[in-house]
Amino acid sequence: MPEVSKQAVTVLGLGAMGSALAGTLLAAGHPTTVWNRSPGKAHPLVERGAVRAGSAGEAIAASRLVLVCLLDYRSVHEVLDAGTMSGKVLVNLTNGTPAQARELAGWAAEHDADYLDGGIMAVPPMIGGPGAFLLYSGSRAAFDTYREPLDALGESRYLGADPGLAPLHDIALLTGMYGMFIGVLQAFALVRGEGGEVKAFAPMLGRWLTAMSGFTERSADQVDKGDYTIGVVSNLAMQAAGFGNLLAAAADQGVSAELMTPLRALMDRRVADGHGAEDITGVIELLKVSGKERAK
Amino acid sequence: MPEVSKQAVTVLGLGAMGSALAGTLLAAGHPTTVWNRSPGKAHPLVERGAVRAGSAGEAIAASRLVLVCLLDYRSVHEVLDAGTMSGKVLVNLTNGTPAQARELAGWAAEHDADYLDGGIMAVPPMIGGPGAFLLYSGSRAAFDTYREPLDALGESRYLGADPGLAPLHDIALLTGMYGMFIGVLQAFALVRGEGGEVKAFAPMLGRWLTAMSGFTERSADQVDKGDYTIGVVSNLAMQAAGFGNLLAAAADQGVSAELMTPLRALMDRRVADGHGAEDITGVIELLKVSGKERAK
Ligand SMILES: NC(=O)c1ccc[n+]([C@@H]2O[C@H](COP(=O)([O-])OP(=O)(O)OC[C@H]3O[C@@H](n4cnc5c(N)ncnc54)[C@H](OP(=O)(O)O)[C@@H]3O)[C@@H](O)[C@H]2O)c1
Ligand SMILES: NC(=O)c1ccc[n+]([C@@H]2O[C@H](COP(=O)([O-])OP(=O)(O)OC[C@H]3O[C@@H](n4cnc5c(N)ncnc54)[C@H](OP(=O)(O)O)[C@@H]3O)[C@@H](O)[C@H]2O)c1
Repeated sequence: MPEVSKQAVTVLGLGAMGSALAGTLLAAGHPTTVWNRSPGKAHPLVERGAVRAGSAGEAIAASRLVLVCLLDYRSVHEVLDAGTMSGKVLVNLTNGTPAQARELAGWAAEHDADYLDGGIMAVPPMIGGPGAFLLYSGSRAAFDTYREPLDALGESRYLGADPGLAPLHDIALLTGMYGMFIGVLQAFALVRGEGGEVKAFAPMLGRWLTAMSGFTERSADQVDKGDYTIGVVSNLAMQAAGFGNLLAAAADQGVSAELMTPLRALMDRRVADGHGAEDITGVIELLKVSGKERAK
Repeated sequence: MPEVSKQAVTVLGLGAMGSALAGTLLAAGHPTTVWNRSPGKAHPLVERGAVRAGSAGEAIAASRLVLVCLLDYRSVHEVLDAGTMSGKVLVNLTNGTPAQARELAGWAAEHDADYLDGGIMAVPPMIGGPGAFLLYSGSRAAFDTYREPLDALGESRYLGADPGLAPLHDIALLTGMYGMFIGVLQAFALVRGEGGEVKAFAPMLGRWLTAMSGFTERSADQVDKGDYTIGVVSNLAMQAAGFGNLLAAAADQGVSAELMTPLRALMDRRVADGHGAEDITGVIELLKVSGKERAK
């Protein structure tokens, strides 16, 4: 019975993601206690060997390692308030801001618990598979002690002691993903306007996005150096002219361009400011909010 | 001298892209005549064997096949008005809307010229290389007759007789790319707010976007079926909650979220309309502009 030596884990929250986490820990042989507000969601996990706790407090009492994966920090606070946290290691995999993570780490410290924040870079079916990676920050001791169950979920990366680091990177990555979603949905809307199937168009789009993915590396270099003239092959003035065609074509197809117009405004401002010969990356300078504007 | 049998080509416009096209045609052995408004840009091509025409009219007269790659349709009309188009095959690789392409095809027909519209899916350094592809629509005879020089530029795809098809697909692909740019730049702005180098973050972002690229195929299926409940692993209500964190984190980092807020509004409307359990793809339904709104 080699499983006996595996560390026990409690999982609070059995939505799509919490269920995937608990199922993967069970499959890896970890004694797993589960709890969910709507108790029915525990059922498939109990059939696979999980212990269902009668309350959140009971679930927290069952294991030193407590994984939390709920909708938001409000629900995290509600659920954790029901238990005794002293001596626990809290690993919070709920999406939130760096500020929320730091605040919760402070709360954990007050309750004599160790705190590790995690960002899950995967959708539920990817958990435990080769494509998943998870970002962690906060207690290094917690990360090192529980490396085995954490590694069962996906590739683990520890970013530093500041608990805000994992959520910051998580949110930055999600932001990148939502940009991709904006582009894909707007592109599909244009093609759908022509009456064809977007499925025939999708592989072409996938190929094109892959071909253009080098933008990430190239623009990173420009941003770090603050020099948007490096390696320009598509000048901003030309891109701004083409962008007008994007918006005109959307109107002709009966598609709202509201997802794209804010970029247009930034491109035009940057050209007007004399940066038309540079790369589009320079629009990032216009995303800085001044102290005065921030105070508003 | 095997080059003698290659078809002669004229290239009008020697910006970054026109120069790449002309250079690639020269390298492939096509007798190439070039012209640019600012004559200095022809110099490096003349050194490589191109013939510099003294005027746009002379350039048009030099070859039956006339490639045009200028900033926009306004410049295309200005330049073409200077020549005699009768009997020519006009291949227009200038970015424009489907409507502009159809209008120019009509103009070409009036001037007794064959018209092929092209969308270049590559940046200039990719021209002639394995990653480049070009979309064509309009005259099938022109496409077939000049397949050799066209194929020298990149993989050629003919989409149909309607000259608007290539620009429609071109613009849809560019739209997808600009969405990716929105995401990358906003993500970099967030990470830069923390003071670190974005270069260290860029490979993580590249990996994540690749991991999430399956969205394109999955959402295409949902869009074609009009069913946003298919294969949901990340429900919209959860994503809308997380999106609030994205915007809050941007504010905390001193970064404007103006590029992301329009998507937020659509997500919230879709949740309010009762689609919170569906996939985010359903926001595409909110991009349809009604006949009444279009008329405004
Ligand atoms: N799904 C993904 O693709 C994905 C990827 C990465 C990260 N995440 C993150 O993982 C977390 C969970 O996402 P999910 O996909 O599992 O969402 P989900 O399927 O919608 O599940 C939400 C969970 O939160 C619980 N909950 C909500 N409000 C609560 C409250 N006030 N008190 C107690 N429990 C409450 C729900 O309980 P009930 O069952 O009782 O409603 C359920 O267990 C989120 O922070 C999300 O950002 C998700
Ligand atoms: N670069 C890319 O990444 C890329 C990729 C795909 C497609 N394209 C498309 O290719 C086309 C050209 O782009 P590019 O990158 O070569 O732009 P560019 O480097 O800015 O060159 C613009 C060209 O247009 C000419 N031009 C502008 N206004 C003119 C006018 N009124 N009369 C005559 N000539 C005029 C310029 O002549 P002067 O030299 O005299 O100014 C120059 O030859 C655009 O439609 C663009 O969308 C570009």
